[in-house]
Amino acid sequence: MQLDNFKSVVSKYDVIFFDAFGVLKTHDTLIPGIEKTFAYLREKKKDFYVLTNDASRSPVELAASYHRLGLSDIVPECIISSGMLAREYLGLKISSGTVAYLGTEKSAHYIETLGLKTMPINQLVLETMAGVNALVMLDDEGFDWNTDLSKTVNLLRRRNIPVVVANTDRTYPMSAHQVAIAIGGVADMIERIVGKHFIRFGKPDAQMFIFAYEHIKNYPNVSKKDILMVGDTLHTDILGGNKFGLDTALVLTGNTLPHEAELKIQSTGIIPTYICESAVV
Amino acid sequence: MQLDNFKSVVSKYDVIFFDAFGVLKTHDTLIPGIEKTFAYLREKKKDFYVLTNDASRSPVELAASYHRLGLSDIVPECIISSGMLAREYLGLKISSGTVAYLGTEKSAHYIETLGLKTMPINQLVLETMAGVNALVMLDDEGFDWNTDLSKTVNLLRRRNIPVVVANTDRTYPMSAHQVAIAIGGVADMIERIVGKHFIRFGKPDAQMFIFAYEHIKNYPNVSKKDILMVGDTLHTDILGGNKFGLDTALVLTGNTLPHEAELKIQSTGIIPTYICESAVV
Amino acid sequence: MQLDNFKSVVSKYDVIFFDAFGVLKTHDTLIPGIEKTFAYLREKKKDFYVLTNDASRSPVELAASYHRLGLSDIVPECIISSGMLAREYLGLKISSGTVAYLGTEKSAHYIETLGLKTMPINQLVLETMAGVNALVMLDDEGFDWNTDLSKTVNLLRRRNIPVVVANTDRTYPMSAHQVAIAIGGVADMIERIVGKHFIRFGKPDAQMFIFAYEHIKNYPNVSKKDILMVGDTLHTDILGGNKFGLDTALVLTGNTLPHEAELKIQSTGIIPTYICESAVV
Amino acid sequence: MQLDNFKSVVSKYDVIFFDAFGVLKTHDTLIPGIEKTFAYLREKKKDFYVLTNDASRSPVELAASYHRLGLSDIVPECIISSGMLAREYLGLKISSGTVAYLGTEKSAHYIETLGLKTMPINQLVLETMAGVNALVMLDDEGFDWNTDLSKTVNLLRRRNIPVVVANTDRTYPMSAHQVAIAIGGVADMIERIVGKHFIRFGKPDAQMFIFAYEHIKNYPNVSKKDILMVGDTLHTDILGGNKFGLDTALVLTGNTLPHEAELKIQSTGIIPTYICESAVV
Repeated sequence: MQLDNFKSVVSKYDVIFFDAFGVLKTHDTLIPGIEKTFAYLREKKKDFYVLTNDASRSPVELAASYHRLGLSDIVPECIISSGMLAREYLGLKISSGTVAYLGTEKSAHYIETLGLKTMPINQLVLETMAGVNALVMLDDEGFDWNTDLSKTVNLLRRRNIPVVVANTDRTYPMSAHQVAIAIGGVADMIERIVGKHFIRFGKPDAQMFIFAYEHIKNYPNVSKKDILMVGDTLHTDILGGNKFGLDTALVLTGNTLPHEAELKIQSTGIIPTYICESAVV
Repeated sequence: MQLDNFKSVVSKYDVIFFDAFGVLKTHDTLIPGIEKTFAYLREKKKDFYVLTNDASRSPVELAASYHRLGLSDIVPECIISSGMLAREYLGLKISSGTVAYLGTEKSAHYIETLGLKTMPINQLVLETMAGVNALVMLDDEGFDWNTDLSKTVNLLRRRNIPVVVANTDRTYPMSAHQVAIAIGGVADMIERIVGKHFIRFGKPDAQMFIFAYEHIKNYPNVSKKDILMVGDTLHTDILGGNKFGLDTALVLTGNTLPHEAELKIQSTGIIPTYICESAVV
Repeated sequence: MQLDNFKSVVSKYDVIFFDAFGVLKTHDTLIPGIEKTFAYLREKKKDFYVLTNDASRSPVELAASYHRLGLSDIVPECIISSGMLAREYLGLKISSGTVAYLGTEKSAHYIETLGLKTMPINQLVLETMAGVNALVMLDDEGFDWNTDLSKTVNLLRRRNIPVVVANTDRTYPMSAHQVAIAIGGVADMIERIVGKHFIRFGKPDAQMFIFAYEHIKNYPNVSKKDILMVGDTLHTDILGGNKFGLDTALVLTGNTLPHEAELKIQSTGIIPTYICESAVV
Repeated sequence: MQLDNFKSVVSKYDVIFFDAFGVLKTHDTLIPGIEKTFAYLREKKKDFYVLTNDASRSPVELAASYHRLGLSDIVPECIISSGMLAREYLGLKISSGTVAYLGTEKSAHYIETLGLKTMPINQLVLETMAGVNALVMLDDEGFDWNTDLSKTVNLLRRRNIPVVVANTDRTYPMSAHQVAIAIGGVADMIERIVGKHFIRFGKPDAQMFIFAYEHIKNYPNVSKKDILMVGDTLHTDILGGNKFGLDTALVLTGNTLPHEAELKIQSTGIIPTYICESAVV
């Protein structure tokens, strides 16, 4: 497997879309040297966006977390999160009543800024169920799985309401060798049990990409040909980027390990335009 | 929809296989009048078995629970549980090491009677993982879902071991209008996340039926033509009975409500031989 | 079930997205009275688009087919087909080599207008496989299913190339009471057999909706709140419209019959904003 | 990866279950040296059965095909085919009317020996549909896929009847480097389109194994501990054998190539007891 040089790859594009985990950072630190990439982009006046399956916080809070790690280039305006899409959906489609949620108070607060009333699943009682007009799954933390997941099933057996999954990922890294089940994995289980269609936001779905595409400042002078999607995961970053018509670069600093990249590409049929060691220039 | 009379249906067969929940009992009580059915079977010298997706207890304990409800006809010898199949599998295939489990201590105790060492997932630490030679999912109670399900995923990423699901049901009734997520629903989630094949025991799988079939005392004089499977659930009892070549009777005292029976039969293509109001003669 | 009046529903929106089959036409004729709807839209200066899962012909040919039926309002510029999305993908992502296809010559001709070389699967021989850089599934006609589907499987075992499914529908109506298997159903089978990810275009995927959204002339003065999606199928038209953030109207002249509408909405959890007898004003 | 010696493995068991394709024969010839294995079994008085997902012919015809290749040890009595299970099901469950089929006349003839009337899908007309009481999918040959598969879908939309899939395999080998789509792959497509549950017979389902188990002559002196399942495919032979409680040997002369065996075992979690180069002693 021939690796491509990331700097020469990135030089060919005007706008770069980055995945976050495994590309810019690991569970608790930046990918070493990644600040050089953003210095290069700044110097070359290339635009960039971070597309992340995350609904645990607002873009402002997400940007602050990069700042704390020492990367100040990532401002709220260049973050596109699946939580933003879920929030837009709720703002457009739910005009009254309560939105029940699975997640932390912080994750619900971002929804409340729309003016919607929210209620954690554990506070729901039989009498208040009639006022629930949507359910949103935001984060895997903030509730008791033993009781609240069955309670969610019972809510959905009683009320035929839209269910929004604000993060499609099934797991996320906890440390170098451990993962945790993400809310997207929990959503799959509940969906199979109740037999209804949930509305999912996050890569590889096209809506993440179009949301970023609409944010490109000098649109419509930038076409899809001028954008590169950089990610570490074939099923989300590369599949989604390819389908949206973008060129894609797989980096080997996250979910896809160097020794398995070729085999995974072969077995999934998800083919990146480039394979690079990392997103460091 | 024309209903069949259960007494005249059951009179045509020598051996009756019963599902438990929704046929003989509800979440906390017997189906009213069901004791008359067992008096009739005793009088007519018809043999019967209870085929139940349950791995929370041994057959002895399951029989005792019927006894407490006032039904003494159901002795341990006529109970065929998915837990028995899981136990047989572990006895045949796992000869050494520890069997990790999700479930209560009571559910694990039934496995330990094989001579196997068991360990709940929450006691597992990195150092002991190397000695784990199988994982068995027994019951939805007895562990902390928030921590132990992710721990299970991490065990299965580290160790390539057989995973046994001892109850394929996704939910079970908690009260007249509420269900709880069963361990089979949890197993589906973990299986999708780790991408491996789990070994499932329980209806509609043929092994439940063959286990009961082998227990028929006067075998081989009884053929499949002489056996009736009685159940309240199309996807487990009726599908499994049909596939095994048995005649099947759907009763409307549990999962399948009278007003939806015809539509469900039409939409699933799972067709019982008879439809009866209940299993009461 | 209370039905909404289509005229009063449509009066609230500036732009209408229509599904084609079951909304504007049946297999061989227009829905009676549908021309009145287009006269009304013209009079009220409301914009409209037809979003159709169809890759058998170009928009010009699709528009001509409406013209022949007597509806001249539907011009090529207001048609958004899944074939257009597939064509855009191939234009952006495939720069050389041959595109193998399943479909008619006419369906392939629309791809060839990009300057790409195409070849029907049945002309493929071992020697030419190395030059094939993509496979596109366009139409269920134009090839021999007995031989060419296995040939497709063998091509995909030999070559790791993108596979584009240009119509996600599994069936289409042939007459009042008969359906035929569509290329989307065939694609599902091939995908499961080869175990790779295919790239699908068509409702309910967001890309169909964004394609139409980008075509709205007075964009950006029209927001998602001002658009109504009208369709006869919950899983494509209504699910896709809802997820994109549009209000949706289910009409009962096609796939969803009046007596089953409520039950299907309940069992799928796909909830239209309105239910109307038809799209006739 | 350490390989086990097949002769020393097989010496530990009293009864051997063999898969056919990829273990005993390839598409048109015997595995070189396999006759030595049967000479050894004869000498050591070990019993054996061939468990094959095949419904294209009767056991008598299957045995004759081995005889023609030069292997006379495989007599009809030691063949357990998925077609036998399908035939048993139809004999037990369908007592009148016509059984429609997809397959060759030869494959249907084996069903007719039950006394059931059969009719190929292509002869079915609207008027005769009412008399069809089951559909059985026997073979991928003998019908026109372009017309008869849609006709099958329309039959199943009109008639709520049991559908039997007599071979669960999705593909079968045509030559050293080519496969063809098997009727099991076709059945998956039709099942997804019509949304009903089909009844499948074949490995890895337990019924194949119990059918063989019941045929063991000196039963019940032979227990599951004394039986070895030998196969080339993890998802059918090894998964099914493991689940039934048998020890299993994976051989590398068919679907699982030597260089990929370890990785496939790791990624699927389907773990054979032994891995051998071939089934030749």
